[in-house]
Amino acid sequence: MADLFWPGDERALTAFDQGSFLETMVEVEIAWLQVLRKDGAPVLDDAQDWELVTADDLDQVALAAEAGGNPVIPLVDLMRARLRERGASGAADWLHRGLTSQDVMDTAMVLCARAAAGGVLRDLDALVASLVALADRHRDDVMIGRTLTQHAKPITFGLKAAQWLQGVLDARDQVRALRWPGQFAGPVGLGLPQAAHASAALGLDDVPPWHTVRTPFTRYVDALVATTDALGHVADDVLVGARSEIGELAEPAGDGRGGSSSMPHKQNPVLSVLVRRAALTLPGLAAQVHLAAADTRDERPDGAWHTEWSTLATMSRRTLVATSQAAELVGGLRVDTARMAALAGADAPADTGHTIDRILRRARENTA
Amino acid sequence: MADLFWPGDERALTAFDQGSFLETMVEVEIAWLQVLRKDGAPVLDDAQDWELVTADDLDQVALAAEAGGNPVIPLVDLMRARLRERGASGAADWLHRGLTSQDVMDTAMVLCARAAAGGVLRDLDALVASLVALADRHRDDVMIGRTLTQHAKPITFGLKAAQWLQGVLDARDQVRALRWPGQFAGPVGLGLPQAAHASAALGLDDVPPWHTVRTPFTRYVDALVATTDALGHVADDVLVGARSEIGELAEPAGDGRGGSSSMPHKQNPVLSVLVRRAALTLPGLAAQVHLAAADTRDERPDGAWHTEWSTLATMSRRTLVATSQAAELVGGLRVDTARMAALAGADAPADTGHTIDRILRRARENTA
Amino acid sequence: MADLFWPGDERALTAFDQGSFLETMVEVEIAWLQVLRKDGAPVLDDAQDWELVTADDLDQVALAAEAGGNPVIPLVDLMRARLRERGASGAADWLHRGLTSQDVMDTAMVLCARAAAGGVLRDLDALVASLVALADRHRDDVMIGRTLTQHAKPITFGLKAAQWLQGVLDARDQVRALRWPGQFAGPVGLGLPQAAHASAALGLDDVPPWHTVRTPFTRYVDALVATTDALGHVADDVLVGARSEIGELAEPAGDGRGGSSSMPHKQNPVLSVLVRRAALTLPGLAAQVHLAAADTRDERPDGAWHTEWSTLATMSRRTLVATSQAAELVGGLRVDTARMAALAGADAPADTGHTIDRILRRARENTA
Amino acid sequence: MADLFWPGDERALTAFDQGSFLETMVEVEIAWLQVLRKDGAPVLDDAQDWELVTADDLDQVALAAEAGGNPVIPLVDLMRARLRERGASGAADWLHRGLTSQDVMDTAMVLCARAAAGGVLRDLDALVASLVALADRHRDDVMIGRTLTQHAKPITFGLKAAQWLQGVLDARDQVRALRWPGQFAGPVGLGLPQAAHASAALGLDDVPPWHTVRTPFTRYVDALVATTDALGHVADDVLVGARSEIGELAEPAGDGRGGSSSMPHKQNPVLSVLVRRAALTLPGLAAQVHLAAADTRDERPDGAWHTEWSTLATMSRRTLVATSQAAELVGGLRVDTARMAALAGADAPADTGHTIDRILRRARENTA
Repeated sequence: MADLFWPGDERALTAFDQGSFLETMVEVEIAWLQVLRKDGAPVLDDAQDWELVTADDLDQVALAAEAGGNPVIPLVDLMRARLRERGASGAADWLHRGLTSQDVMDTAMVLCARAAAGGVLRDLDALVASLVALADRHRDDVMIGRTLTQHAKPITFGLKAAQWLQGVLDARDQVRALRWPGQFAGPVGLGLPQAAHASAALGLDDVPPWHTVRTPFTRYVDALVATTDALGHVADDVLVGARSEIGELAEPAGDGRGGSSSMPHKQNPVLSVLVRRAALTLPGLAAQVHLAAADTRDERPDGAWHTEWSTLATMSRRTLVATSQAAELVGGLRVDTARMAALAGADAPADTGHTIDRILRRARENTA
Repeated sequence: MADLFWPGDERALTAFDQGSFLETMVEVEIAWLQVLRKDGAPVLDDAQDWELVTADDLDQVALAAEAGGNPVIPLVDLMRARLRERGASGAADWLHRGLTSQDVMDTAMVLCARAAAGGVLRDLDALVASLVALADRHRDDVMIGRTLTQHAKPITFGLKAAQWLQGVLDARDQVRALRWPGQFAGPVGLGLPQAAHASAALGLDDVPPWHTVRTPFTRYVDALVATTDALGHVADDVLVGARSEIGELAEPAGDGRGGSSSMPHKQNPVLSVLVRRAALTLPGLAAQVHLAAADTRDERPDGAWHTEWSTLATMSRRTLVATSQAAELVGGLRVDTARMAALAGADAPADTGHTIDRILRRARENTA
Repeated sequence: MADLFWPGDERALTAFDQGSFLETMVEVEIAWLQVLRKDGAPVLDDAQDWELVTADDLDQVALAAEAGGNPVIPLVDLMRARLRERGASGAADWLHRGLTSQDVMDTAMVLCARAAAGGVLRDLDALVASLVALADRHRDDVMIGRTLTQHAKPITFGLKAAQWLQGVLDARDQVRALRWPGQFAGPVGLGLPQAAHASAALGLDDVPPWHTVRTPFTRYVDALVATTDALGHVADDVLVGARSEIGELAEPAGDGRGGSSSMPHKQNPVLSVLVRRAALTLPGLAAQVHLAAADTRDERPDGAWHTEWSTLATMSRRTLVATSQAAELVGGLRVDTARMAALAGADAPADTGHTIDRILRRARENTA
Repeated sequence: MADLFWPGDERALTAFDQGSFLETMVEVEIAWLQVLRKDGAPVLDDAQDWELVTADDLDQVALAAEAGGNPVIPLVDLMRARLRERGASGAADWLHRGLTSQDVMDTAMVLCARAAAGGVLRDLDALVASLVALADRHRDDVMIGRTLTQHAKPITFGLKAAQWLQGVLDARDQVRALRWPGQFAGPVGLGLPQAAHASAALGLDDVPPWHTVRTPFTRYVDALVATTDALGHVADDVLVGARSEIGELAEPAGDGRGGSSSMPHKQNPVLSVLVRRAALTLPGLAAQVHLAAADTRDERPDGAWHTEWSTLATMSRRTLVATSQAAELVGGLRVDTARMAALAGADAPADTGHTIDRILRRARENTA
């Protein structure tokens, strides 16, 4: 909910945190149990099902996870014990039948990833709206274009905002295109007869087992990196524009935002700094998920799979935080058009309307 | 054409090597010059145009590239000098008019990437065909499934081949979906009036300037990594199956293939080793291209852009080499079904036909 | 204390976790306050100082960290409020005087890193002792040497253990050589007059300000990666030796260790899998810390510094966990010398004593 | 000698390029042959030895390298054929006796790395001298210190130069501390009796076989990254100081240096851009070498080793280029102290002499 090492983490709420992942695994096991009713599994009543295992049980499950190399064995043990306490020993017997640990982990990760992607999309939508407005509003506000840090020729700030928008639209396309398959493959990936039913119950795609083909996760992290790539570009430009000597842009003033522990007068572009932070780290983390995909041997690999969990969770939360921060940053960005004009000098205004309009058109088509 | 540090590099022929990149930049400049005829640029005759600057000029251009930070200035200088030598000084004056270095570099990189992707696709098609045949042929050949290095439960080798196929199909989808835009943005990205015409002349998509939005390249490297991820998975499984104690799989015997400098009797699974090599390095290289995208400031960034060129070229060639090696490996893979059966023991045959058929159906639909 | 996404995390206890980092920052602020007594700061009595801010305050501080981009401002605010509650308003006024946020963060990170390195060293010492014993005990136990997965020529298991030992000794040398400097640089790195005194109070080296020169952290992560490199090598070899078809090595049997959720009879080499997991991820994380060092601009960089905190903490804990797991793995490794001999065949025993003795001699010299 | 994709590559001359690597492998084979004279190998006369295989044979050897997975088999074949042509068939018979491919590759890589490190050290020495002079000359030249892109408090430019110097000294210490061992381990790493003699002949350390313990290379790349980390920091600061609005720093004017293909009046800080380029890519490449070290299985690993060669060569050349560029950049850096003073405003001069002197003292002690 908050992370001393990653300020702003609380913006991601509980998305893909340990507690929600635990509860999602429970959701998968219960969904599977319900699917097994066709095969004879008993029906749970609400009292038996209700908060069977929750985030409060996190430590107990996590502490017992090392022995089997993943948390599913202790989770199933705990769920069975609770079911028996609640008089549902038939259900306890049926629980997890046919599944392997990886089915539960993978499906829960897909569900958590889908939820995180939903949050990212909401903030990207807000960002698109803000950028459309910004590009439109500043279509004629001339500023100097800079290449390799040097003044080059005039552009407009609307064009710069439209470029930011292009990156965000590209990222949004990629997030929107993601697919969310269930994994009900069984111990060595034969595929379980009830897989289609279970996937449907969780709103997931029914596809063949993919326990050794990690594309759902590599595409997911590619989309997250595409997102922070786009946001990093925005942050970098704001950080230049906010430099004391340049002063074209300023972050939205917030409650204590941008303060310094030693120089109270100073206003730091904190949101941009924190967005940039994410953009610097996501590429390397995505590489780990790809390496895991590439380093797959046997019907379950000997270490690669185990690197995915923490990396997926961390990337999801960082992207959520960065997208939220970027939406706030762009939504409240302060633009000093007079300063822009002054720095651009007497140069004739740049003709950027055509390019801006093409990009805005794409935004409108994608949004409608 | 051959690389002492990357055995097998010659499989990529001249794809995205320095010479072909140089010639592709020349192609871009000439295409642009032709587009400018509408604005009054003179028409070149064949003798003036013919091999104006070629791979033979590589050293001259490369050695002069540092001063401007990229090879376009010396290339344009050389082209102009040659044009004048050939009596085309009007063309020399018009050459490169309106363009910026990045236009030429970016468009040439897109063209080289498109060519490399075409080569990758051809080998992926061959790989798909081989894998379809393999999965079909071995649909009833039982072998032991292994998880975390240990014998688990029986599968069939057909299922394993079908899993390999899934990864390759995922990669092929991603390569097929790539788009190839021209970049004719001008010095600060206003977009040049002739951009649509120039892109069309080169068979490229006409999109707004993307000089600060590097999605065409990040998606390209994502697709390359998806490819080597899929191939690494195959290689890892072959390397296990080829272990002396296991002996289920063997690489195709080739001319001197797999030899050892100290133990002439030994047969090493060299293709798999070399494919795996690529799969271990592509994720980290892709991360560099994403970092470049994220670290974009101003209308041309101060170093990030410059990291793309070598990385894109290296990744392209390594993927071409790995795909070619994997196609040869899978095409000639020797499968010892008796050994598989012996290791699987008396266990009942696994029912894998349903899953195999689903995956084969997808392959057939995608190929048709 | 336990991490659902990183089974075994509890082995690292509270090392470099958020709570201990918070308390370490408090320790730095209090040490500084004591140093300021020479300048007139009041003396705190035990009741005023005692558990002023603890891990229980984590959420409050972390939630307020985003505004300033780091947790020091809210921490100092909270410490001041508590001091005033305890009647130490003079101390509240003096608290943090002269310091900048980075001083507190950097010094606290050094202290946490030093503590983590101490834990790593303890487990490396245990590992060295086990490996020395293993190499010595098996100096004449012949096994087949394997190259590129194929049987090559005989070695002894003692030689293999001695190779593992070499890597561990190299890593230990690197961890031992680390230096731990204090950071008392002030807002722009002029260096504070009381720096030497404050560093001494915390047992840290007194060096010039290094706020923009991140060598203490890059060397630290290099040493951590060297450690997981060495452990990954051990794990990889055990994973090969433990394969069902090979059966030369087995992990120590533990309470439920290596169990499977679907196949109760199966014994998975879980420790090796989990050690390998760390070894696959540390290189990429170290690259992030180097990137932060390289991407330093101004007297405090605009995002790079902010990427260090989480990465350093994660790397520290993962290395502690992996070293502990490796020590347990090697300490209880089961070696089937008969199986080794059988697989090596009739070949003459290998003469490995000389090489083993050289490596053991180094171990003994380094340990004495 | 020049690389279109990496402008400035020619600064590295032939260091660790394919030709010099080939010739270094020849050097290793010949040194070994000479060592074998004690065992009865014939003495070569100068005519037989002279340019037996050279960089001109590169293509032939490289094209034949794939079959065995590395270039040693075709190299030895070629050397034998040439020796026989020159009437030295006895030597041809003795050539490579006892060695394995990895011995030749590893030892040649160590020799190439040592040569590259020597070149890096020479440029680092020049850089240290320039930075010492810069720090000293500008010890009283006040400029504004900046944190998080914003004006903070005054420093001196001497202090900034001294900070740059600290990073360079740290890197130089690390490069200086590198050790260069020979590898004469034989096919499975037993260690060859003549190893000590052969290492001595090549000026290399005699250590036990390290074929599966890659510390010599991981420490080497750590030192290279430490170098580009330090240089990246310098480049980043110059890029800020050279911004059009800031104008405190300018790169040395060179022949056509910093030109633009579209805006002839523009002066780009090209050296800084190109140095920064290297600093952005080295961390990820070093991670590949660490991953190779960590992913070592058997007595020769199945792909990890093969990733080292290209990565080591690339990193070596990029570091040489960057160090040379940085030395030129700093050696001719133009400092506008009046502009610095103007931007710093009326603030009292900062007291930085003490910190500068501490750092200069270290430089002098290390250099003497």
